[in-house]
Amino acid sequence: MAVGDDALPVLHPVDGVRLATTAAGVSKPGRRDLTLIEAAEGGTAAAVFTANRFRAAPVRVAAEHLAAGAPRYLLINTGNANAGTGARGIEDARCCCAAVAETAGVSVTTVLPYSTGVIGEPLAAERIVDAVPGLTAELAADRWADAATAILTTDTRPKGASERLEIGGRTVTLTGIAKGSGMIRPNMATMLAFIATDAGLPAGLADELLRSAVASSFNRITVDGDTSTNDACTLLATGRAGVTIDGSDPVAREAFAAALQRVATALARAVVRDGEGATRELIVTVRGARDEAEAERVGFTVAESPLVKTAVFAGDPNWGRILAAVGRAGIVDLDAERVAIALGDYVIANDGGRVAGYEEAEAASRMAGTEVPVVVDLRRGDAVVTVHGCDLSYDYVRINADYRS
Amino acid sequence: MAVGDDALPVLHPVDGVRLATTAAGVSKPGRRDLTLIEAAEGGTAAAVFTANRFRAAPVRVAAEHLAAGAPRYLLINTGNANAGTGARGIEDARCCCAAVAETAGVSVTTVLPYSTGVIGEPLAAERIVDAVPGLTAELAADRWADAATAILTTDTRPKGASERLEIGGRTVTLTGIAKGSGMIRPNMATMLAFIATDAGLPAGLADELLRSAVASSFNRITVDGDTSTNDACTLLATGRAGVTIDGSDPVAREAFAAALQRVATALARAVVRDGEGATRELIVTVRGARDEAEAERVGFTVAESPLVKTAVFAGDPNWGRILAAVGRAGIVDLDAERVAIALGDYVIANDGGRVAGYEEAEAASRMAGTEVPVVVDLRRGDAVVTVHGCDLSYDYVRINADYRS
Repeated sequence: MAVGDDALPVLHPVDGVRLATTAAGVSKPGRRDLTLIEAAEGGTAAAVFTANRFRAAPVRVAAEHLAAGAPRYLLINTGNANAGTGARGIEDARCCCAAVAETAGVSVTTVLPYSTGVIGEPLAAERIVDAVPGLTAELAADRWADAATAILTTDTRPKGASERLEIGGRTVTLTGIAKGSGMIRPNMATMLAFIATDAGLPAGLADELLRSAVASSFNRITVDGDTSTNDACTLLATGRAGVTIDGSDPVAREAFAAALQRVATALARAVVRDGEGATRELIVTVRGARDEAEAERVGFTVAESPLVKTAVFAGDPNWGRILAAVGRAGIVDLDAERVAIALGDYVIANDGGRVAGYEEAEAASRMAGTEVPVVVDLRRGDAVVTVHGCDLSYDYVRINADYRS
Repeated sequence: MAVGDDALPVLHPVDGVRLATTAAGVSKPGRRDLTLIEAAEGGTAAAVFTANRFRAAPVRVAAEHLAAGAPRYLLINTGNANAGTGARGIEDARCCCAAVAETAGVSVTTVLPYSTGVIGEPLAAERIVDAVPGLTAELAADRWADAATAILTTDTRPKGASERLEIGGRTVTLTGIAKGSGMIRPNMATMLAFIATDAGLPAGLADELLRSAVASSFNRITVDGDTSTNDACTLLATGRAGVTIDGSDPVAREAFAAALQRVATALARAVVRDGEGATRELIVTVRGARDEAEAERVGFTVAESPLVKTAVFAGDPNWGRILAAVGRAGIVDLDAERVAIALGDYVIANDGGRVAGYEEAEAASRMAGTEVPVVVDLRRGDAVVTVHGCDLSYDYVRINADYRS
């Protein structure tokens, strides 16, 4: 189940980026479970990784390799997260990178590994190593949609976003793909997202723009409040478009940053809209907060409340559950008498009580669609934050109780 | 659905306490939805209330009345929480108290109101007022089991605990009842719990002992992480047993405090074992923490993880989900390489990886019963805390998506 009929949009090739996918036998037999993304020499990259204290082996190796210089190869397997696998897990991740490095004739530190799937099982690294030469031979520029599909696990559909814009008389392309459906409360990034551009980006700026885009996209979504051990979001910039984004042209920089933000937000929303068992997207906007941290805390508390989520599933305007969630969000000096709650443009509660003339049918009509907009106004400041989540359905339980059986 | 076949134990009458129940028409027609608990004159009381910033009208009135002196009457309705009801809610709560005060010929501040049920609907106070005279006429000492049933909402079974112990050559009785099944992550107390004793207790000590008992019982359970607007736990001490617990006899005080702790813990466990849709009790023990706050944080993060809860429902030893929850619990300097995870006596992970010779069938056998014991050893200190929760099943979604329809 998923929200709406979101189809994969057209994913424009990015000059300097090639992709390939194959079935290595890590996931179900015959399923394409191994993806390689190659960036041409001379580009830059940035990445943000999970804040979970348990960082999976590939995350640790990827962070180490990223620190060593510009990555050129991203190797992604599904079916096994290579997390909680101790020293052997690290060895396995290095071994997969080495296979790519050998085949491509590059240094091993230019290869970043990514894994997603079950936690705690040893990775069948030898199958990945065996598959690498064939995979490398298949690299092509027009395989973004294939890659978007090959990186999935419990996702029901591929997720991608792509933009073209003019900067300095040149056409710049940004294309990104993401996977993620459960264990989604990214903290630094979603489970896995890969964005590439043919603009040139100094490495420091790539890092800065990626962190900024992630902060208000992947870091503001939740399916189940569970931060994955394998979260990673990576940006590749090839520079092949013939334009470099740097401090010299603020307008160009702003245009590029905004496009990156839109791509990241589209991918992040695609993740919650394909949240495990999701039937409705829950869009919680918190306004009137003292600062963004406070707004974010309230937004997440509402968006992660199982009672709010089941009410959204039922299309039931049980606003008391929203009120209770706001009240326990940890704002100790909150004046409950001032808080207002609305569903979209329909104000339900004001000054601690239901508004006069409240009509349940009106409120219910705001929950009947695939997007349920909840607005909480704390009326104590100017900060506004929107958090995206989804409902909690029978299918969420089915998917997570049957995951391995 | 609920965990095990827990039957209501024998609830001993408490000398000086009488109870009555009736159908006032607040909940479903014919359902006993109004309960009155009377304590004889001359006793003391203590109560702890929700930490939710939205405190329901009855909680606010009860706290105010408690501050004014020793309560003698507790009036409890189900079917409507009288929360999010603004100024009218406060008036309604006062009006119900006044009806009891008038009938019993006592001051209105000796009556404490408690409400539980749907949030945001006006309370049918006139029905309660009309029912009070008949209710008062029915007061009797042997109605604890009736009251345990009348205070329920989505609970599937009544919850009670009762102890008799010898203190200073006298028999002291403690009897308590509780309700609660959803919106359970008490913060000061569960939705509603009432404990009475015929021991004498100075008011200050009653408060101290109740807070201590609540801290490690009601404040260490979770069904869905949602703190109710109506939580309250109240202790009545009549002194009729002829023995007063005070600072003069440390042994007597310790014996009484331990009995109160056992009663509170039994009631708290009964709440999670009847958690909405629960099929298994999840018992998370965190040891090796630097302090109790840290252990509690990890315990709640594990016990509230939807992924852990659905794995418990499935009886699936998917320990990677436990590991991921521990890793996101907010201990920034946690050394993930030292953490150990066990199911009961079966150690699964140690030093950041799965133990050699791990057998899934062995692990699964520890999850097959109605109580699933998860042990997390942080190996960085001496603090130990146990948090009680339950699994997440299809029935949880059914109950909360159908609540009002």
